[in-house]
Amino acid sequence: MTVDLKGNERIDELQRNGYRIIQNPERFCFGMDAVLLTGFAYAKETDILLDLGTGTGIIPLLMEAKYGCRHLVGLEIQPESADMAMRTMAMNGLSEKIEIVTGDIKEAGSLFPPASFDCVTCNPPYMIGNHGLVNPQDSKAIARHEILCTLEDVIAQTARLLKSGGRFFLVHRPFRLAQIITLLVEYKLEPKRMQLVYPYVDKEPNMVLIEAVRGGKPRLKVEKPLVIYKTAGEYMPQIRDLYGY
Amino acid sequence: MTVDLKGNERIDELQRNGYRIIQNPERFCFGMDAVLLTGFAYAKETDILLDLGTGTGIIPLLMEAKYGCRHLVGLEIQPESADMAMRTMAMNGLSEKIEIVTGDIKEAGSLFPPASFDCVTCNPPYMIGNHGLVNPQDSKAIARHEILCTLEDVIAQTARLLKSGGRFFLVHRPFRLAQIITLLVEYKLEPKRMQLVYPYVDKEPNMVLIEAVRGGKPRLKVEKPLVIYKTAGEYMPQIRDLYGY
Repeated sequence: MTVDLKGNERIDELQRNGYRIIQNPERFCFGMDAVLLTGFAYAKETDILLDLGTGTGIIPLLMEAKYGCRHLVGLEIQPESADMAMRTMAMNGLSEKIEIVTGDIKEAGSLFPPASFDCVTCNPPYMIGNHGLVNPQDSKAIARHEILCTLEDVIAQTARLLKSGGRFFLVHRPFRLAQIITLLVEYKLEPKRMQLVYPYVDKEPNMVLIEAVRGGKPRLKVEKPLVIYKTAGEYMPQIRDLYGY
Repeated sequence: MTVDLKGNERIDELQRNGYRIIQNPERFCFGMDAVLLTGFAYAKETDILLDLGTGTGIIPLLMEAKYGCRHLVGLEIQPESADMAMRTMAMNGLSEKIEIVTGDIKEAGSLFPPASFDCVTCNPPYMIGNHGLVNPQDSKAIARHEILCTLEDVIAQTARLLKSGGRFFLVHRPFRLAQIITLLVEYKLEPKRMQLVYPYVDKEPNMVLIEAVRGGKPRLKVEKPLVIYKTAGEYMPQIRDLYGY
């Protein structure tokens, strides 16, 4: 099959199911956050899943590889990223199963029927605002800063789209944790499971993984620490497993 | 100096400043939680500190030993525990500096002037309600279950008693974390620092330490993991330091 690459695009192997992904290093390439989120999240064969702000589609691709799912949708506002995601799904023979929709997270609640998803995933922009950014139109800035949508937009739309008992999986930065939890509770997405990601066992965490359940009862399970590196450059065994090495 | 012990009371050494504490194993003896809280908390020489539900006074005693403080108050509802705390302070020559007040946390806001403390500490009951308890009047049950006060009582009274910019230090169980954060934010006690306590590096955390600042700006610093045991029965070095071994 011929793959139509544009500009500086390249094809990367995902070490899972033989899947490959089209990325462009001048734009935004997926990071460990997305991979960790798909390791923390889980889905059933029958689930319908939505990934908010899917970028080039890494999260639905890995969720499909790991859990199957009935149908997966990736919503992405930047047309160039959505276009790469569509070509990636075609390249992997997944155009039917993984649908890429070009659109705005802030309008997700009207793009899809209410309470229509079993599972919502999101690796959103982490940084507040766009103060001091040279170019807020830049695709990397949009992926990293809350320029086009805020955390509250993500959580409010997720609350509309999840079925009762449906699960929301979020990766974010620990410094936002109080706000994340407050907003989830406000929108009736009860935090049920949390894991902190520590780069080393004696360092502060740099990521937090959260599962919230729509209409769940209050009781949070905090998981054992997820430590990334044993020594500089050497992953801990659970991280190697996650990357499929 | 003669120490007046009652019933099965005993005197324990605290390995710090030569301080000793009167405890009764038939009632509630302090645990690692209180010690970890005083390791996580900090105070200035000039601070006025309140410990809510002080039991036999372990927290003000250790805070005085470590940080001095201008004046410390321990509030305790159970008269027998408050009596032991008073005799402990006398035995250590601290009756002037550490004041023990017999009273109810739910009324703390009217027992003391509003916004009169720089620092509030609390090692509250962790368990919700008293379902299935054989004897809810039991002193251990009162220390462990929310029989006489709830988490919201503690947080609401703390918010009245702390100065603007004053610090609240809480130790609790991770399964209550979402509720803790939601209530703190609701009462304008912004969570600023958090540390999870893991018994072993590969186990789920069993305690969480939180610092909240009255009127603080939203930004949470999550600390490196606090791991208790290296191997069964062998403390990690930072825990040995905390106990003053």
